[in-house]
Amino acid sequence: MDLTPLIQPADSKLLLLVLDGLGGYADAEHGTELEEATAPHLDALAAEGTSGLCEPVGPGITPGSGPGHLGLFGYDPEVFELGRGALSAAGLDVELRAGDVAARGNLCTIAPDGTIADRRAGRVPDDEARLVIDKLEAGVHIDGVEIVFRHEREHRCLVVLRGDGLDPHLGDTDPQQIGVAPLDPEPRTPEAKRTAEIVAELAGQARTLLADEPKANGLLLRGFDTHRELPQYADRYGLRAAAIAVYPMYRGIARLLGMDVLGAPTGLDDQLGILRDAWNDYDYFFFHHKGTDSAGEDGDRPRKIAAIEALDSIVPQLRDLGPDVIAVTGDHSTPSQMAAHSWHPVPTLVWSERCGRDSVEQFGERWCRHGDLGIRPMKDLMAFMLANAGRLQKYGA
Amino acid sequence: MDLTPLIQPADSKLLLLVLDGLGGYADAEHGTELEEATAPHLDALAAEGTSGLCEPVGPGITPGSGPGHLGLFGYDPEVFELGRGALSAAGLDVELRAGDVAARGNLCTIAPDGTIADRRAGRVPDDEARLVIDKLEAGVHIDGVEIVFRHEREHRCLVVLRGDGLDPHLGDTDPQQIGVAPLDPEPRTPEAKRTAEIVAELAGQARTLLADEPKANGLLLRGFDTHRELPQYADRYGLRAAAIAVYPMYRGIARLLGMDVLGAPTGLDDQLGILRDAWNDYDYFFFHHKGTDSAGEDGDRPRKIAAIEALDSIVPQLRDLGPDVIAVTGDHSTPSQMAAHSWHPVPTLVWSERCGRDSVEQFGERWCRHGDLGIRPMKDLMAFMLANAGRLQKYGA
Repeated sequence: MDLTPLIQPADSKLLLLVLDGLGGYADAEHGTELEEATAPHLDALAAEGTSGLCEPVGPGITPGSGPGHLGLFGYDPEVFELGRGALSAAGLDVELRAGDVAARGNLCTIAPDGTIADRRAGRVPDDEARLVIDKLEAGVHIDGVEIVFRHEREHRCLVVLRGDGLDPHLGDTDPQQIGVAPLDPEPRTPEAKRTAEIVAELAGQARTLLADEPKANGLLLRGFDTHRELPQYADRYGLRAAAIAVYPMYRGIARLLGMDVLGAPTGLDDQLGILRDAWNDYDYFFFHHKGTDSAGEDGDRPRKIAAIEALDSIVPQLRDLGPDVIAVTGDHSTPSQMAAHSWHPVPTLVWSERCGRDSVEQFGERWCRHGDLGIRPMKDLMAFMLANAGRLQKYGA
Repeated sequence: MDLTPLIQPADSKLLLLVLDGLGGYADAEHGTELEEATAPHLDALAAEGTSGLCEPVGPGITPGSGPGHLGLFGYDPEVFELGRGALSAAGLDVELRAGDVAARGNLCTIAPDGTIADRRAGRVPDDEARLVIDKLEAGVHIDGVEIVFRHEREHRCLVVLRGDGLDPHLGDTDPQQIGVAPLDPEPRTPEAKRTAEIVAELAGQARTLLADEPKANGLLLRGFDTHRELPQYADRYGLRAAAIAVYPMYRGIARLLGMDVLGAPTGLDDQLGILRDAWNDYDYFFFHHKGTDSAGEDGDRPRKIAAIEALDSIVPQLRDLGPDVIAVTGDHSTPSQMAAHSWHPVPTLVWSERCGRDSVEQFGERWCRHGDLGIRPMKDLMAFMLANAGRLQKYGA
């Protein structure tokens, strides 16, 4: 259902608490991390609210962070795409603009015979790589194109081309194997011909500039992509929306959807302060907590539980602000047993004056399973939040 | 969600146990057959795994065996079709080829005035019918077309036309009523004109050949159909798949999807032996148990329960083989109260190291209802099996 035609204004405030990678699974020894966490304030929200399990993308599908967040924001991840380039840029706080072409870059080692000896330049350390990227930033010049180089981690970087008439439809220069020469960037449409020439010129200049580097003497590019225009929160939902997140990627995703990204927090206390200061200026807040996912990815069960408890401890202050609707969920599951994202559905609660109390008294997968939200796609959460916020008109007469 | 782009290789082994017609319904006197069966090994799988109820085609829809199995294999039965001709052919171990046109035939009784006196030729007994079919096989000749006649049961047979330029778009010759003459096969497209002429000629020759038969002196054809190319398991899922089934129809369906059909088992013990021998050669095994459905169709509740218990008794040997993922379900329900296929959702469990344990301790409809798989379309089962087998990549970055 397209919600936009039903949107009506209201004074209500919505708060979406995202515990990244929240979900887990029970096994013979343990309940899930959330089930075993001591989280009295989340439990109170569940007891007063309505709970369920949400599938971020689809049954059995393990979501990346991009699709996971699109679902949270009510954008069907099978319809909308952030794109790898856009996500990389978002993760580096680089704002892609309409017409930009972005690619992911690998510093690599080219052998004397011109073939690739190492696609990752021996996983060159960050400080060394940064110097190499600075050299490219300073040295590469192509008429009529602005070129942004941004170091990510180790051998990885982002390259953005900015200028008129660029087109992302070209093949990778990275052959994804060693012992062969880098590929010429092949235009896949006539419109991409000039962009392919620019990329070839860029690769040539990089070779020259890096000729004396012991390891990182070449640059491979892949995944050419452009900025994709996504429907903006204000137009889609009539919401003045703000994001409060520590990590660049989530800040970037929020920005792509037209949210204001607030402050430069380094942790939950900062985030809480920023939320308080901005409370009167927005209708909707996306509050992102990374600790759960980081711990889950490390397979660190106690730390994941602690991260849940840390978020739990600030719930009273969040409630003191007087939100009309609170939703608590995750963008995907990161079971510490797997130390990775997974397909398991994500525990979810919606709390408001009018949400309806179900039988769930405690926040956790095994209880959510029996809550009134049921098992459903994550993209539907936004409709429940808006409905509870009095922001959706009746459908039909 | 199209799973194919997400498929990644893995060493895991998947085992799908299909108890044909497994599901049932509780009434004032009884629980379902599965609920009342003594099935400790299936219960253990449910206790260690995750359970739910699956709808093979859709809410309220009673599936035939074709759509029921397509759902089990992750092919949306509303999108993919086996076709009646293909199914009949599969059931008779006849392999339809590209360009073949198949139809279902009824031997019938034609009255002296040329109208149909009995559409089923008095349900002519098998041995008698077989002789009539042999007569047709030997006597019908049409230039440029190979014609295969295959007896099914009683008055029913399969007719396959093989040759160049055949087209299945023609109307039935069976008017589905008595007291009228058989219909001329009407071409529905210009391309089907020649095929219609061939079928008219075939019907005429049959009349002549069978003129002296006391009962089965005519042949009615319906459901003209051609071979349909279905995506093959290897391409769709990257799986080396094998089917171990007693009955031809299920063997045929598996073959249409590119599975290897193993051995010629006559019962569960044979099937188990074949599975053991082939264990190292395949990634995925479709293990089909017919007894549950046959008993259900006969309205024989104790026999259906016994068929469930028979399958249960070999579960330990199946587990000993070391599968990574086991799914247990049915292709549809066959409640013994109805003595027929039904729309009731089918109890389903998924067992693996990473499936997540839910609260279900016993395998049966009333418990599955509360399991973490929820109530969902059967076509989604394959995604869960693949996810649990580590064979699906993350979706998006």
